[in-house]
Amino acid sequence: MTVLEDLIQALSRLPGVGRKSASRMAYHLLQTDQEYNTRLARLIHGIQQRVQRCSRCRSFTEEGRDPCDICSSPNRDRRSLCVVEHPQDVLTLEATGAFHGLFHVLDGVISPLDGIGPEELNLPALLQRIREEQIGEIIIATNPTEEGDTTALYISHLVKKEGIRVTRLASGIPVGGDLEYADRITIARSLRGRTLLESLE
Amino acid sequence: MTVLEDLIQALSRLPGVGRKSASRMAYHLLQTDQEYNTRLARLIHGIQQRVQRCSRCRSFTEEGRDPCDICSSPNRDRRSLCVVEHPQDVLTLEATGAFHGLFHVLDGVISPLDGIGPEELNLPALLQRIREEQIGEIIIATNPTEEGDTTALYISHLVKKEGIRVTRLASGIPVGGDLEYADRITIARSLRGRTLLESLE
Repeated sequence: MTVLEDLIQALSRLPGVGRKSASRMAYHLLQTDQEYNTRLARLIHGIQQRVQRCSRCRSFTEEGRDPCDICSSPNRDRRSLCVVEHPQDVLTLEATGAFHGLFHVLDGVISPLDGIGPEELNLPALLQRIREEQIGEIIIATNPTEEGDTTALYISHLVKKEGIRVTRLASGIPVGGDLEYADRITIARSLRGRTLLESLE
Repeated sequence: MTVLEDLIQALSRLPGVGRKSASRMAYHLLQTDQEYNTRLARLIHGIQQRVQRCSRCRSFTEEGRDPCDICSSPNRDRRSLCVVEHPQDVLTLEATGAFHGLFHVLDGVISPLDGIGPEELNLPALLQRIREEQIGEIIIATNPTEEGDTTALYISHLVKKEGIRVTRLASGIPVGGDLEYADRITIARSLRGRTLLESLE
């Protein structure tokens, strides 16, 4: 049956979906209410039109809302700017409710092996924002990977002459984690980045 | 962002998809080629129209092909009939290439706890087929669960008076499996259902 096979093939191109899960999804779609299928199809078809990028911070924003809700909110702390790899990182950080500043999306990290240098990233706009906006601190929230660290270091050098405080998200043992299962590099980092007990809430 | 949230919600209704995977899928859909989204949306929207059920065996068939390719094939062994729970089981068995007979889909199993009795299953059609077609053996391929076993037993009683051989898929340690990790019931079954060495290929 080619139609079902086509659907399974298409579904298995989604991230984290293998052939087995794609089959299960296809059978589900075959037997669920058609109303759901119609809605899902419409959402998938329209998502790229209805969700766009903010011209200021490059995070996701709804069609017709540019700058995005965060960039144009009067309630955000405009002195701190959080630099992230991807637009979805903005949503992840927003979900914590722990950050009240603005964002800047790099759209990648420096990765020489993949042929991605600083010029591929959204850095000129970052420098421009630093000059034009009243930013006092840049929090670099790239992932604690080799590429993320390299990028953080690069940005820190780039920004140094602007006289701005540059910080990096703490790296260490996850809350609820176990020393026994943490890797050595993480433990070493958590030692180097140890915090005074009274500074923890 | 409500649109993105709507998409994530809709995706997380798919089987085996939690909120995290749904988010990853949504971000992928946001950033992949629109052509893929259009194709996937069209497939999802049309699948229930384009894939239907065979009026004879109740397995999936493409729109306009009733009876299905298996039921109408001149190359199938019409004397053996494999009884399965769901239409997708037909595809799973077909993929093995090990069965060349016909199928019959029950559309469920007897499950008193869920209020599903024999009258909810596609059994009258099974009896009718037994009477009208030249079936010599019924292979019951319901899952080796309590419900699947009960259903197998029920069918075996039902069919007994028709003088037809009724068999059941062997249950035992999966090929490549390990005795040490098999549960006791499976091991007990594999003992009861032990086969003569020469009978194995």
